[in-house]
Amino acid sequence: VRIAELSRRSGTSIASIKFYLREGLLPAGAATGRNQADYGDAHLHRLRLIRALLDVGGLPVATAREVLAVVDTPDIASHFVLGAASTALYRTVRRDVGDPVWRAARAEIVELVDRRDWYLSPDSAGIDLAADAVAAFRALGQADMLAVLDTYAEAAETIAAIEVDLVIAKADPAGMVEGVITGTVIGEALFNALRRLAQQDASARRLVPPADLPPAGYTAEQNHPAGTTGSLTSG
Amino acid sequence: VRIAELSRRSGTSIASIKFYLREGLLPAGAATGRNQADYGDAHLHRLRLIRALLDVGGLPVATAREVLAVVDTPDIASHFVLGAASTALYRTVRRDVGDPVWRAARAEIVELVDRRDWYLSPDSAGIDLAADAVAAFRALGQADMLAVLDTYAEAAETIAAIEVDLVIAKADPAGMVEGVITGTVIGEALFNALRRLAQQDASARRLVPPADLPPAGYTAEQNHPAGTTGSLTSG
Repeated sequence: VRIAELSRRSGTSIASIKFYLREGLLPAGAATGRNQADYGDAHLHRLRLIRALLDVGGLPVATAREVLAVVDTPDIASHFVLGAASTALYRTVRRDVGDPVWRAARAEIVELVDRRDWYLSPDSAGIDLAADAVAAFRALGQADMLAVLDTYAEAAETIAAIEVDLVIAKADPAGMVEGVITGTVIGEALFNALRRLAQQDASARRLVPPADLPPAGYTAEQNHPAGTTGSLTSG
Repeated sequence: VRIAELSRRSGTSIASIKFYLREGLLPAGAATGRNQADYGDAHLHRLRLIRALLDVGGLPVATAREVLAVVDTPDIASHFVLGAASTALYRTVRRDVGDPVWRAARAEIVELVDRRDWYLSPDSAGIDLAADAVAAFRALGQADMLAVLDTYAEAAETIAAIEVDLVIAKADPAGMVEGVITGTVIGEALFNALRRLAQQDASARRLVPPADLPPAGYTAEQNHPAGTTGSLTSG
């Protein structure tokens, strides 16, 4: 189909499609004439993947390009698939590795990994990223928030176990790689959204007097207009 | 202190500090003469917060500005603090609310919220964000990955309970707001990093033959060079 039809079917503007083509995220269509190209179902699927990575996952264009390159790697079977697909997803952070606060934070994460007996490739960027976050809590005088660390680690294990099982259940390598990508990026967006909803629930339960709580559950929304769930001063 | 000293103490370049001043993230110092200003401990703390939000949390500058405005709101006690601070953190996504796939995804999240009896403000942006992710899984033919949904929700509850308890334990409203901000943004970065580490562990345990597994734990890294943790083909 032509680009206009691809735009219609995917709900993506022609300008966006041209941007994705120019940025190398979307492969060119089959040339059918001067300035004309034909796009198929593979392009439609790729467009959905691009928008999921950019819009839902919030990835920068450059990161999305690297991630899609992994999807397109033909010899995926020779990779340690899960690792290969997710390595492209790590952001690089300006950090001062000589900073004693950061070194202490990293030691704390290494200790956690040891305590939980996790098998990790020694160059796991995740260790440094976790250390960045721990160092930020400490630098901001919020070290008390680090009491979450073991709860986080245990929840991460529970989640990772089911995620990896679901990816492995796909059996075919191409489906697995795309499963890792979507499971990591879209799954992260999904979990983060649920975490914020759960935080709202947890704070309502703690800060709103029981008599002022509306019936629980979303369908109760008709019973109370926006913003009346409670206020800190009334608690 | 002068800007050069602020730069040295915070490990942030003068160019970055000037950028934060220009973007309204960092308040101006006290003017001490033509083109000179004096910066204090509050500026140093604010700089750490800005870098945590941008570098560790990965927030866009515009979002960081909104979040910092919440921190600076003087009448925080009159807000439903946790809600106010975190509403600024929601990304806006291009979405087609008329799309039947998206509407079904949203219904699925509403059902989940009802099933778990969560108290939510009816305008919770988190519901739409979670629906975006569910719709993306379905559009990409990865609906099987949605088997994670209840595990995610339960883990989110466990995490949110301890996070909110820690914030409430701070008692003073200013500390609470900054605790919500850092707990949400830095905590998210920390959890996401641990989730990826746990995924590496889970995939090593499932895909690498037991005989090929190195000793668990990070300190075992000396025993095996990078990249030898295993490969899919050997599994």
